[in-house]
Amino acid sequence: MTPDAFSDFLAADWGSSNLRAWRLSADGAVLDLRRWPWGVARLQPGEAARKLADEIRPALRAQNLPAILCGMVGSALGIAAAPYADCPADGDALGRRLLKIDDRTWIVPGLRCLRPDGYPDVIRGEETKVLGWLALDPARRYGDHVLCLPGTHAKWVLVRDGRIARFNTCMTGELFALLSQHSVLRSGAAPSDGAGFTEGLAYGAADGPLAARLFTVRARQVAQNLDPGRAASFLSGLLVGDETARLPPLLGLKPGATLSLMGDPDLCALYRTALERQGFTIDTADAEAAVVAGLTQLRHAGAIP
Amino acid sequence: MTPDAFSDFLAADWGSSNLRAWRLSADGAVLDLRRWPWGVARLQPGEAARKLADEIRPALRAQNLPAILCGMVGSALGIAAAPYADCPADGDALGRRLLKIDDRTWIVPGLRCLRPDGYPDVIRGEETKVLGWLALDPARRYGDHVLCLPGTHAKWVLVRDGRIARFNTCMTGELFALLSQHSVLRSGAAPSDGAGFTEGLAYGAADGPLAARLFTVRARQVAQNLDPGRAASFLSGLLVGDETARLPPLLGLKPGATLSLMGDPDLCALYRTALERQGFTIDTADAEAAVVAGLTQLRHAGAIP
Repeated sequence: MTPDAFSDFLAADWGSSNLRAWRLSADGAVLDLRRWPWGVARLQPGEAARKLADEIRPALRAQNLPAILCGMVGSALGIAAAPYADCPADGDALGRRLLKIDDRTWIVPGLRCLRPDGYPDVIRGEETKVLGWLALDPARRYGDHVLCLPGTHAKWVLVRDGRIARFNTCMTGELFALLSQHSVLRSGAAPSDGAGFTEGLAYGAADGPLAARLFTVRARQVAQNLDPGRAASFLSGLLVGDETARLPPLLGLKPGATLSLMGDPDLCALYRTALERQGFTIDTADAEAAVVAGLTQLRHAGAIP
Repeated sequence: MTPDAFSDFLAADWGSSNLRAWRLSADGAVLDLRRWPWGVARLQPGEAARKLADEIRPALRAQNLPAILCGMVGSALGIAAAPYADCPADGDALGRRLLKIDDRTWIVPGLRCLRPDGYPDVIRGEETKVLGWLALDPARRYGDHVLCLPGTHAKWVLVRDGRIARFNTCMTGELFALLSQHSVLRSGAAPSDGAGFTEGLAYGAADGPLAARLFTVRARQVAQNLDPGRAASFLSGLLVGDETARLPPLLGLKPGATLSLMGDPDLCALYRTALERQGFTIDTADAEAAVVAGLTQLRHAGAIP
């Protein structure tokens, strides 16, 4: 059976905060796209399945088409908890592990890995983007590649010979939100100062416990009347600096290596600044193209008719 | 004028969360002690001054006695903002900088220092405990000593030849509260597992960004069904481990050195475990005796009649 024998299908990237759903042709061409604010963290139990049947399928004229969904929709908060698959994993392995919900609905499982430090890590949704990124260029199927997907929980993924080998999650975005909204560091302003961000990056790479470097944001406001917008930028830079100075070595990356960034363009721009200062060459990838390619690949790998 | 010529006085350690006030004899003997939950962060503007006049002075029969107050009562949240004094500072220097509020009320200023990393740090309240600790034993007036006062904002203070030389604040306690109450790491349980704490200490000393090591608390709950009480202990150990492995070198401390802990006994016990694992010899100091000695010294250094 070749892709030409397959029907159109419904594909969705359904996370904690947002939902994007496409009607795709069998070869992954985008025929329609809708966005909704129905992240599973915002829905009541059972609501995700009803949204799929009553709103998403009709909106994309996909009532009877196969649907393949990735992201937190595959957790206990979503439609059903899809057990994690283990690393290393490629598209074929993940395709065999799709969780069948009913005759026309499948969920992509997340991935679990064991890191060199002996502890586990988990990912749910980003595996599909990374597999799609791999599928978009055959040259990527050989050797080692590292992708960084910044966000609330940034994911740093090591790909080796076409398989997701392992990854590290870094909760930089969540820490920034907590500290700038609920802690003594809150300045009441949004980050607004490129020089403050750059200064924060340098201090993020400095020695000492993070909790001590963080307090500097407060001490500078009290002792030096640091401008609130600059304080917020300094905090953002400090957290991104701590991450970008210390995480690449955990994945074996050395300065000079190439690293691919994928995600929100504004956030990727901040990470690019940070990582270029660390001596990395940055390549920016299109997250939307990647997730569409990943869901298309998994649909075929899973032999979903 | 010798101490014998001085009257009894009112002394208070008045922080963000709590207030302890004593009636002391001129030589610092405790004649009476009261505790109230009137931390300045819990009071309305102007309320601290009214509490002092209407409740605290009458309760300690100290209406007409001199009062000397330290802590966040000397911030904009309290009775009046006492400008920070600069390091290095000893009791005489700080005594000359007491902020006179009225004919019978003085506030101890906080301290500001410039750290070797080029950034400022501030302290308000702990300076009085450290000066009192120095006053309690003349042998402490020579050479270098480091004190650690764990808490919401732990203070690590370097004393050199009888003066507070500089310090580092580490907001470990606040991070723990934020993460265990408001983040994806919350387990719904209190720390309950000594082995989990010890395991966290080891991981706190490991490489990598703190935000990446923190996510392990979540990944272990998801991927390994980590017990909630153990997860909370692991988180506590991880944060204290990051602090105790990385802060002492910033103050020039090497394994084998002696370090004094002062504060809440349960918290000091956790820090003792952590610091002994790092090779330090721990000496525990009585915070209440220290603040009483510090306020007594400052009363005389300030020549308050």
